[in-house]
Amino acid sequence: MRGNTIGQLFRLCSFGESHGTAIGGVVDGCPAGLQLDLGAVQGELDRRRPGSTPLGTARNEADRVEFLSGLFQTQGQARSDLRTTLGTPIGFLIPNADAKSGDYDKLKDVYRPGHADRTWEDKFGLRDHRGGGRSSARTTASVVVAGAIARQFLSAAGIQVNAYVSAVEAVKADPAKLDLATVWDNPVRCADPVAAKAMTALIEEVRAQGDSVGGVVSCIIQGTPAGLGEPVFDKLEADLAKAMLSINAAKGFQVGSGFEASVLRGSEHNKRSQGGILGGISTGETIHFDVAFKPTATIAQAQETTDRSGAKVTLEAKGRHDPCVVPRAVPIVEAMACIVLADHLLRQCSARA
Amino acid sequence: MRGNTIGQLFRLCSFGESHGTAIGGVVDGCPAGLQLDLGAVQGELDRRRPGSTPLGTARNEADRVEFLSGLFQTQGQARSDLRTTLGTPIGFLIPNADAKSGDYDKLKDVYRPGHADRTWEDKFGLRDHRGGGRSSARTTASVVVAGAIARQFLSAAGIQVNAYVSAVEAVKADPAKLDLATVWDNPVRCADPVAAKAMTALIEEVRAQGDSVGGVVSCIIQGTPAGLGEPVFDKLEADLAKAMLSINAAKGFQVGSGFEASVLRGSEHNKRSQGGILGGISTGETIHFDVAFKPTATIAQAQETTDRSGAKVTLEAKGRHDPCVVPRAVPIVEAMACIVLADHLLRQCSARA
Amino acid sequence: MRGNTIGQLFRLCSFGESHGTAIGGVVDGCPAGLQLDLGAVQGELDRRRPGSTPLGTARNEADRVEFLSGLFQTQGQARSDLRTTLGTPIGFLIPNADAKSGDYDKLKDVYRPGHADRTWEDKFGLRDHRGGGRSSARTTASVVVAGAIARQFLSAAGIQVNAYVSAVEAVKADPAKLDLATVWDNPVRCADPVAAKAMTALIEEVRAQGDSVGGVVSCIIQGTPAGLGEPVFDKLEADLAKAMLSINAAKGFQVGSGFEASVLRGSEHNKRSQGGILGGISTGETIHFDVAFKPTATIAQAQETTDRSGAKVTLEAKGRHDPCVVPRAVPIVEAMACIVLADHLLRQCSARA
Amino acid sequence: MRGNTIGQLFRLCSFGESHGTAIGGVVDGCPAGLQLDLGAVQGELDRRRPGSTPLGTARNEADRVEFLSGLFQTQGQARSDLRTTLGTPIGFLIPNADAKSGDYDKLKDVYRPGHADRTWEDKFGLRDHRGGGRSSARTTASVVVAGAIARQFLSAAGIQVNAYVSAVEAVKADPAKLDLATVWDNPVRCADPVAAKAMTALIEEVRAQGDSVGGVVSCIIQGTPAGLGEPVFDKLEADLAKAMLSINAAKGFQVGSGFEASVLRGSEHNKRSQGGILGGISTGETIHFDVAFKPTATIAQAQETTDRSGAKVTLEAKGRHDPCVVPRAVPIVEAMACIVLADHLLRQCSARA
Repeated sequence: MRGNTIGQLFRLCSFGESHGTAIGGVVDGCPAGLQLDLGAVQGELDRRRPGSTPLGTARNEADRVEFLSGLFQTQGQARSDLRTTLGTPIGFLIPNADAKSGDYDKLKDVYRPGHADRTWEDKFGLRDHRGGGRSSARTTASVVVAGAIARQFLSAAGIQVNAYVSAVEAVKADPAKLDLATVWDNPVRCADPVAAKAMTALIEEVRAQGDSVGGVVSCIIQGTPAGLGEPVFDKLEADLAKAMLSINAAKGFQVGSGFEASVLRGSEHNKRSQGGILGGISTGETIHFDVAFKPTATIAQAQETTDRSGAKVTLEAKGRHDPCVVPRAVPIVEAMACIVLADHLLRQCSARA
Repeated sequence: MRGNTIGQLFRLCSFGESHGTAIGGVVDGCPAGLQLDLGAVQGELDRRRPGSTPLGTARNEADRVEFLSGLFQTQGQARSDLRTTLGTPIGFLIPNADAKSGDYDKLKDVYRPGHADRTWEDKFGLRDHRGGGRSSARTTASVVVAGAIARQFLSAAGIQVNAYVSAVEAVKADPAKLDLATVWDNPVRCADPVAAKAMTALIEEVRAQGDSVGGVVSCIIQGTPAGLGEPVFDKLEADLAKAMLSINAAKGFQVGSGFEASVLRGSEHNKRSQGGILGGISTGETIHFDVAFKPTATIAQAQETTDRSGAKVTLEAKGRHDPCVVPRAVPIVEAMACIVLADHLLRQCSARA
Repeated sequence: MRGNTIGQLFRLCSFGESHGTAIGGVVDGCPAGLQLDLGAVQGELDRRRPGSTPLGTARNEADRVEFLSGLFQTQGQARSDLRTTLGTPIGFLIPNADAKSGDYDKLKDVYRPGHADRTWEDKFGLRDHRGGGRSSARTTASVVVAGAIARQFLSAAGIQVNAYVSAVEAVKADPAKLDLATVWDNPVRCADPVAAKAMTALIEEVRAQGDSVGGVVSCIIQGTPAGLGEPVFDKLEADLAKAMLSINAAKGFQVGSGFEASVLRGSEHNKRSQGGILGGISTGETIHFDVAFKPTATIAQAQETTDRSGAKVTLEAKGRHDPCVVPRAVPIVEAMACIVLADHLLRQCSARA
Repeated sequence: MRGNTIGQLFRLCSFGESHGTAIGGVVDGCPAGLQLDLGAVQGELDRRRPGSTPLGTARNEADRVEFLSGLFQTQGQARSDLRTTLGTPIGFLIPNADAKSGDYDKLKDVYRPGHADRTWEDKFGLRDHRGGGRSSARTTASVVVAGAIARQFLSAAGIQVNAYVSAVEAVKADPAKLDLATVWDNPVRCADPVAAKAMTALIEEVRAQGDSVGGVVSCIIQGTPAGLGEPVFDKLEADLAKAMLSINAAKGFQVGSGFEASVLRGSEHNKRSQGGILGGISTGETIHFDVAFKPTATIAQAQETTDRSGAKVTLEAKGRHDPCVVPRAVPIVEAMACIVLADHLLRQCSARA
């Protein structure tokens, strides 16, 4: 109820502050008997890890996930990192190893511009100021673990989820030149290798200026069977929109033709792709949607803000931050999409007598 | 679980097909002791009603809501349409009076382009084809009733929710000329009287062509206290996004700077309004967001489609439909926003010891 | 959240006060494509109806259920009361026809002993005093409708649910002489015809004295597949216990050997039936449980109580009431069991990969 | 949905198998700003710990709870084990230190009588056979941690929860001689010191015989404000019944006069205590209820059972087990009651406008 759980039948209950003992979660509802490749889960986490791209923050967390329950090592399994799901909750944690809390001491009584420092205090009356506490994007590591588990369940059902950076500021990927196989080959995680270079150059330039920049992550889901989605309120695009807008720094979501649909005629729009969803239910065609991200709020330039007493102060950030969040948002968008799809795949199991 | 319920503490459970006996719902969680003006609820429903605007469908439902439970008429109340909420579920229904099901007989075995006919069959194995069954936008009348109740609860807390059409195709309202008091004075429900005229002319033109057109509805929420929203998954903007994307024909959502944020630098963006929400929690400032709608799928022109056997057929729609959904979407966007806000206002009650 | 919904995948959202316009509910999650016999649903409601047994209250509600949505009348169905479920929510209502609210006027400011008058006011600050408002057992009619729908779904899966009165005060049914086929042949709804006569005589005697008496309803569930139930918190017996204790006047629940288990040795108990459930999961054997009911709180004798001002008053009930609730509790226990079983049957659909 | 979560606003999501890496959970919804005494939490866990009573199993788990999140150590707190709740989820784990899995190797293909071995396989297709896997009562340690947190929240509201053993087989505590202050002074956790001695002697005798014995745990809740409980389905006694029947080996629940109510006349029953709850809502008086437990299924005597192939085998248990579960059930009953009460205390926050 407090908002730390996502999903109905495939469900993640998440916990953890940025500089506490550990972050982690409980995946409940993963069906029993699924062969789970723990190495692949760690691999997905590595993609989100601070330090995974030269464009990101210098914070260097090993981010090793430890599984606590819900998995069984059956005899004769080919590799030591293979497990079978028991149908019971999969508890896991990721230790907070490299928490330089001292960097944040001076932020104890100051509200950073564009951050959730003050709103968390408005809500709860107190906050863990170290590293943003629970408002930190670090909590998305738990999402990536749950998403990686969901992905293996989806994969067995023939569903593939791929995201990529489609825009950094005004630099856009060319839809005609997308090659999903190249996404992880460039530091910006763009599916268009040419645009990737321009995006990388732009981010480096912005970083040198002590500034930050926004962008768009696009996601493509292939192999979805027709029939997923629960109208009228849990439409597939509605649950995707919620999942995406819950990602730190996300400001917009559109499915299919999206905002462009608002400037089209019906005679034209009906001929277009509907984004793989009609009336909230998957059509069986490819699903595609976009998520807009704002520029990182923390920048290296001096900024005006206020402290708890209401006094104006000038803030110069000393923490370690990304000049552009979208490269690291790619695995998070994928993970969220996997969780939503796995949930709806299970919900469909009980739709017919 | 099947997707017909929205909200956690302030909750609507909705039911009804377009051409069944009635549509309706149950509002559970409205606090006890609220003075409820039933006339005002009916007034909001009238705004959504087919026939409420000359730009809409010719279907003429009286749309009279009947309350069945949860309300108490105390002695000495000033007006006969005032009730006090009991804290028990408020059951209500709206009879389907003017259902011309015959218009739809020929659609029994045909899948209309851009509609959810086929996906509902893919999901459930059968559908009520009359008037779109449960996929019809008629189901949003139940949302409007629940939203009108939520609005009276919010109003007592000083929260005001107002939506308006901000774009029809390329015709946009001028942000500098908005006057929320004028929204219901023009048929297109635009807050900029000058743009309203251009939008009206455009919609009439499109209707004459037998075509349809999309647009954008914007929403402004004033008076929200700081502290509403439940990170990390039930962020205020996440729940708003879900609610908006569950509205028929909605294709996109953005909060604050939205997609424009993706082309801004952090040094610039931090100075802008954050849309009244930071880190998923309301700041106490004005909240604003936009919802993109596609053009109505049903148009008067002949269109190619397929029937159940897979054969190609040419379809000429005979039902009664809107050339542009956005004017009638305005009260629905408001109602959805009211439900989400009321829910989060109640959720905040238990946040602190 | 306010407590008017039961079930996860097969779910009833209930509404209604005893003397309001109507009571009713929404059944959400009944799978699509189920052939539903509406006559049989009404038949079950008739069994709970006031006036269905000469041992009950004189209140004479016709209790005709009206279905509003979720059902489709397909061409060529053999009988006019057959429908097919659409997979969408089934809204229904039962008008409150014979509400003699005037009988209750004097109770407006008085708290009846053993009733929930005062606690509802303590909770919500006000109550609908007419006929007990929402605390009335009349609300169980909605449960019976939902249970009758659930039963038809269970029946298609080979599951049979039967309840009967096993004790009225000290008169007990003989476990060796049970004949479930005779339950509805006697007014007390006992499966042992000999005990039924003694129970009937006892209830008549108690009624003549202006008093009331308690009893026990037992329930037998046959044909349940092994594997239903969701440890660790939603064990099958846990969900049954909750459903039973939510019935008006219920004070106790036991499954299998129940309280008798507390006086047995393990060596003996392991040889006994476990009540068809082990570790919270059905074994595939017959499930049996018992529910204890207190004597009806409203009696014809004068009783001491207090009014809103705290003053002592003597109360002589004028309303129409049952001298013993257990005969009319039998269809409610069955209905609740059907809802719980249907819910768990659907939950099991997604248990395995 | 899979059944590993209990509570709505105060909520425990539990995970863990008996012989996995760790058991644990996430407490979500504990209000922010609560001063939490971690030493007291560990103290409650110590009471449930194997080895806490000479009457229990010889398994010797240290059972040290480790908190991972949701707590903040503010400067100047008097003791090092004091924390303040942040309003964010409290993740915790308890390592499985002393898991002698080897003892269970021979049980891999055998179904123990009275245990959930076979039903878990029927449900999920596989199970972790070591120490009962997730069907083990060891999982209740997570409940005790959550209950201990809930208790501190309740305590601040003046609510006290106390349980004790009221019967072991036919030896009963004398209601006139209860002294709650003595419960933890005797190994059987009985509030009547005289009965405690007889119970202890009985259990020792049963243990010597290689057998086990059942009993009853009673619970008394004082200081509850009037108004808690959510009719019609989440009545306070209904949620208590569910929570209690979800405890391993529980077979029955009764509130107030319970099964005895079934043999009373209304004129008599109305004068008695109603168990502190009327119509599902607390009256403000003392709440009392009883939970019946069956004898431990695992006994030292040889027993007949079947293996996976269906063949009959004779089983002689070698694991370490309790001859009577009720002494160790006392802290679990208390913890469950605390969780239910805390949840309803928070739910009441939003009941009135």
